Amino acid sequence: MTKYFSEDQSVDVVNARMGGEINPRLREVMTSLVSHLHAFAKEVELTQAEWDLAIEFLTKTGQICTEERQEFILLSDVLGFSMLVDAINNRRPAGATENTVFGPFHVANAPVREYGATISLDGKGEPCHFTGRVLDLDGNPIAGACVDVWSDNSDGYYDVQQPGIQPKWNNRGRFMSREDGRYSFVGIKPVSYPIPDDGPVGKMLGALGRHPYRPAHMHFLVTAEGYETIVTHTFVGEDSYIGDDTVFGVKETLVAPFVRDGEGAWRSDYDFVMVPSLQE
Amino acid sequence: MTKYFSEDQSVDVVNARMGGEINPRLREVMTSLVSHLHAFAKEVELTQAEWDLAIEFLTKTGQICTEERQEFILLSDVLGFSMLVDAINNRRPAGATENTVFGPFHVANAPVREYGATISLDGKGEPCHFTGRVLDLDGNPIAGACVDVWSDNSDGYYDVQQPGIQPKWNNRGRFMSREDGRYSFVGIKPVSYPIPDDGPVGKMLGALGRHPYRPAHMHFLVTAEGYETIVTHTFVGEDSYIGDDTVFGVKETLVAPFVRDGEGAWRSDYDFVMVPSLQE
Ligand SMILES: [Fe+2]
Ligand SMILES: [Fe+2]
Repeated sequence: MTKYFSEDQSVDVVNARMGGEINPRLREVMTSLVSHLHAFAKEVELTQAEWDLAIEFLTKTGQICTEERQEFILLSDVLGFSMLVDAINNRRPAGATENTVFGPFHVANAPVREYGATISLDGKGEPCHFTGRVLDLDGNPIAGACVDVWSDNSDGYYDVQQPGIQPKWNNRGRFMSREDGRYSFVGIKPVSYPIPDDGPVGKMLGALGRHPYRPAHMHFLVTAEGYETIVTHTFVGEDSYIGDDTVFGVKETLVAPFVRDGEGAWRSDYDFVMVPSLQE
Repeated sequence: MTKYFSEDQSVDVVNARMGGEINPRLREVMTSLVSHLHAFAKEVELTQAEWDLAIEFLTKTGQICTEERQEFILLSDVLGFSMLVDAINNRRPAGATENTVFGPFHVANAPVREYGATISLDGKGEPCHFTGRVLDLDGNPIAGACVDVWSDNSDGYYDVQQPGIQPKWNNRGRFMSREDGRYSFVGIKPVSYPIPDDGPVGKMLGALGRHPYRPAHMHFLVTAEGYETIVTHTFVGEDSYIGDDTVFGVKETLVAPFVRDGEGAWRSDYDFVMVPSLQE
């Protein structure tokens, strides 16, 4: 191998430059990244003008980021990369509840509410009673699990997207599972919403002939001592975007029943099945 | 293929989402990009914490960019990606002068100077006489070619890195080749310099056990009607960084002679060989 760069040996030349004493995992990741990025450029014979455009795109993507907005996560989401990283890191046995993307709208330390209480503090939207059990793989109830939930409001916005809006903690809450594993709360039947599409990623979606919508879903973060944390949503199956979530978050097993009860209110029953965490 | 995301079929699911009527080249490039990015994540089983770090790195890389600083180009440079794109787009027959990276320090419309004139306006550094011919592939002279040249000063800075510094256009100039194809100018023997390494890319180089230096070089942008533009440098072969240019710009054929003449001044003679441009 020559010490100088050549098109043929570009990957080896670049990777050979890393020092001998560096973090072995960093070496592994960077070696693979360089290899795949170069393979991409070679496969499509990327032009200089295309690369200039990409540099401009990446720069704008970074520059629109603020404390409240993370456009690179959005980019990762719409390329299915976030779902892929989630999938790789959360392979579970059959019967266990599957993960999906965390999303940018969680807020830590939401109020802990009573069994059966409501999170719909503005009274808007179609009421929906969410119920179910937290179970282990053998079907035994898990008591004292924390079921942290959040959804958009009836206009399709999370409260954090409308700074200053009252009441606080609308459509958010934490619920502890009972001795029989049951959780219960009242919220609204969530509605589909677009991811923020007024930036570079939205423009890219447009050029790709894609829409920015996510099908309606309720977010769940389920934690219990001794078990792997579940980060997931339940989806409204009848949503028109159910087959083409712009961030690829839908999985077959996460489509939950949403049915009307006798008085016309919605009810959604869904059990969470947790996997024991590794003991080290 | 299921319509929902799965680890196995992640690439197909994401790429199937593109619309039917989009730009075919955009479809080709994005299809390949998604495929290679997903292959990378799968190969190294990228963790969520690693991806979070990468998102933070990309965000900072975008946010340090200004009119004067382009950190994403720097990132592309140190990963050998800029050289690769340049190589793919400038394959030339044997005997033709090879390209290398353009770099961020060119300024358009430098003064056109007389044959043999100096570009070293501050009088600092070791004087060097740059001479040579502009030729076609058959060795015939090309008259009236524009040889646009720029180098760092004896402290290792380009004038644009020191805003407000006088005199203007120090170590820059454009020279027209004569009827016999000859060009001639006086500059300084350039010195090695670090790329800007106080940002995310510099930090990454540190973690990779790499230095930020480029071996000493003179930049050339050679244009002539009817010929492909040459973007290149000539390198000082004795430079201690010649074998490990941090942006991989060195090619064997671009290492030029730098020899002392009788009076102790340097002289560097280098011929540029141009390829006819495609007639369309
Ligand atoms: Fe959401
Ligand atoms: Fe340079």
